[in-house]
Amino acid sequence: MEFSSKLLENAVVEMSQLPGIGKRTALRLVLHLLRQPESQTAHLAKALVNLRTEINFCKNCHNISDTEICEICANPRRDKKLVCVVEDVRDVMAIENTSQFKGLYHVLGGKISPMDGIGPSQLTIESLLNKVKAGEITEIIFALSSTMEGDTTNFYIYKQLENTNVQTSTIARGIGVGDELEYADEITLGRSIVNRVPFENSLKNQ
Amino acid sequence: MEFSSKLLENAVVEMSQLPGIGKRTALRLVLHLLRQPESQTAHLAKALVNLRTEINFCKNCHNISDTEICEICANPRRDKKLVCVVEDVRDVMAIENTSQFKGLYHVLGGKISPMDGIGPSQLTIESLLNKVKAGEITEIIFALSSTMEGDTTNFYIYKQLENTNVQTSTIARGIGVGDELEYADEITLGRSIVNRVPFENSLKNQ
Ligand SMILES: [Zn+2]
Ligand SMILES: [Zn+2]
Repeated sequence: MEFSSKLLENAVVEMSQLPGIGKRTALRLVLHLLRQPESQTAHLAKALVNLRTEINFCKNCHNISDTEICEICANPRRDKKLVCVVEDVRDVMAIENTSQFKGLYHVLGGKISPMDGIGPSQLTIESLLNKVKAGEITEIIFALSSTMEGDTTNFYIYKQLENTNVQTSTIARGIGVGDELEYADEITLGRSIVNRVPFENSLKNQ
Repeated sequence: MEFSSKLLENAVVEMSQLPGIGKRTALRLVLHLLRQPESQTAHLAKALVNLRTEINFCKNCHNISDTEICEICANPRRDKKLVCVVEDVRDVMAIENTSQFKGLYHVLGGKISPMDGIGPSQLTIESLLNKVKAGEITEIIFALSSTMEGDTTNFYIYKQLENTNVQTSTIARGIGVGDELEYADEITLGRSIVNRVPFENSLKNQ
């Protein structure tokens, strides 16, 4: 791409550093900002810089938080003995959205991935084990995505918990509520048959 | 979406003001920036603000330019009597990329679109007519995308040129009707300039 302006080129190049944003899309976004009031660009830039420089993580669960201890961890009505292990803040938001979980979270900050150079020490696993050793947790629910990296991470943590008496579980895998059976992938469908539940149980959830 | 941090929410909300970027995508982009060095966010913010506040347009062709007169207009080897009328900088970039055009551009800054409240006075049509009246131009090539708005704009300018002796043409319909110019492959686009047809001919096809 040949740009008629260095200012334009810089903006497009920086924007296209974002994942999934090619040069063409970056140019479209940047031209959009040029058609909007100057304040919109100023607000966007300020919000990004503020987040990046003032970002804080909950000292207990490691989720993004503006306070030392996040609202969930600080809530006296949440069950502190039940901990759901997730990858990042998006998973916390997705589960909170269901209103079905009343315990706390533990945000790992990623998954073990030798390909990407991410080992256990770059995640918050040590902190989780310390909480278990301190006797603060009775059950851990693994809620990582069921990819090879997710399974590896689950298993690594599971092995570290061997000589403790904490209970472990994983979220159920199956056909989405309302989904057509014929469109489900075969691994999910297979697992949903192997891990079938008593029919009475399914009635209780309705 | 319930956010665990006001800083995070602000960044996501501002990012999702961009066209085609929903809240989910915005969150993904913002979390990506958090995993990168602080300098990346700083550079992005600075590049966007710099562009928005210091943006300049060529006094002759109205294309985005860091100088009063852009490189193309200032180039003594370009044919100043041949002017290609385009919508915005993306079209200039697309046509320059073909190396088939040796004249100058005239960037309208949009198309006539009553639906979006864009009339002739918001575009740089007056400036084009002044150049014609000053006898600086012998041929105008219309290279707007062939949408209803593009055709309307072409026709409006064409009518304004009626009592002048400037020649008019449109790029050949090698470009798919309804397709955006910027997505055309460069060979097709180059050919459509070489094989441009008198504007009157394009009216017969409607
Ligand atoms: Zn917390
Ligand atoms: Zn120019």
